[in-house]
Amino acid sequence: MSDGQAMPSFALKVPEGDDRERNVCTRCGFVAYQNPKIVTGSVATTEDGRILLCKRAIEPGFGFWTLPAGYMELGESVEQSARREAREEAGADLELDRVLAVYSVPRISQVQIMFRAKLLNADSITPGPESQELMLASWEDIPWDELAFPTVVWALRQHREVEGRADFPPFSNPADGV
Amino acid sequence: MSDGQAMPSFALKVPEGDDRERNVCTRCGFVAYQNPKIVTGSVATTEDGRILLCKRAIEPGFGFWTLPAGYMELGESVEQSARREAREEAGADLELDRVLAVYSVPRISQVQIMFRAKLLNADSITPGPESQELMLASWEDIPWDELAFPTVVWALRQHREVEGRADFPPFSNPADGV
Repeated sequence: MSDGQAMPSFALKVPEGDDRERNVCTRCGFVAYQNPKIVTGSVATTEDGRILLCKRAIEPGFGFWTLPAGYMELGESVEQSARREAREEAGADLELDRVLAVYSVPRISQVQIMFRAKLLNADSITPGPESQELMLASWEDIPWDELAFPTVVWALRQHREVEGRADFPPFSNPADGV
Repeated sequence: MSDGQAMPSFALKVPEGDDRERNVCTRCGFVAYQNPKIVTGSVATTEDGRILLCKRAIEPGFGFWTLPAGYMELGESVEQSARREAREEAGADLELDRVLAVYSVPRISQVQIMFRAKLLNADSITPGPESQELMLASWEDIPWDELAFPTVVWALRQHREVEGRADFPPFSNPADGV
């Protein structure tokens, strides 16, 4: 798409060989597929088990606490994406351990891939533009009533559940969804 | 987007608060983010350990063998997506076991989430429109030289590696990438 060039016209129709309506260009036939988005994030802990949390400086969830996480970009791996988000939001260098969970949020067509990770530079973390403040929270200090998203609650609880375990299958959405 | 309505004009620029160029509408400021795409698939086995393979009837990989897999749609979970793909491509009903692997293919901005699964209806599978033919392959029968994609090779090998194990972390891309 170049500057000033009008986009072609789209109409909803079922492309040949497909089974559902897509936005198809009425001029050139280009199919503008819409796809779920990937969020990658981490439960990153210090050597003494405190967890990195970020107070959000942007909507949604402005002022609430979250794990370092965000939308995956083109041309990167899920691991690169998770490490980049921690750097951007908290100046944090992570060593990823393994996939903690794969959550689906169908309502907003989002998949969240959460890693268990080690925080390598606890002494030099610093809030990025999307964070107001950072916290290294022990389990008792987690601000449960001020967490930004249900998936943050799930990831924290499930992280706790497998503490010290090397081999575990990744979690999915909790059965009760809370 | 409605029928016959011209799309606004887009230009590459860095949106406020962002750090990279996006396609931004010069009229309304809408940012058309581009995101990696999610593929979900399964290594699905019969009770006696044979694996469901599908011979592709479409490009890419026309005529080569693959695991039932495909693009995740809006509004579904990764689990629903993996089961839907198996139904569409092979008339197969799956019981998903757990996440076998999360692969990244940065070159084409794709993330593949592969499940280990049980094939529930081995007697009534049937090729869908995207499959020429199906096979229930024992390990010795896998057509290694005729597999469609590297990720199919990885998933089959890694599935074998954790056969009989309940708790294992999901695999990522193999270190040597082959």
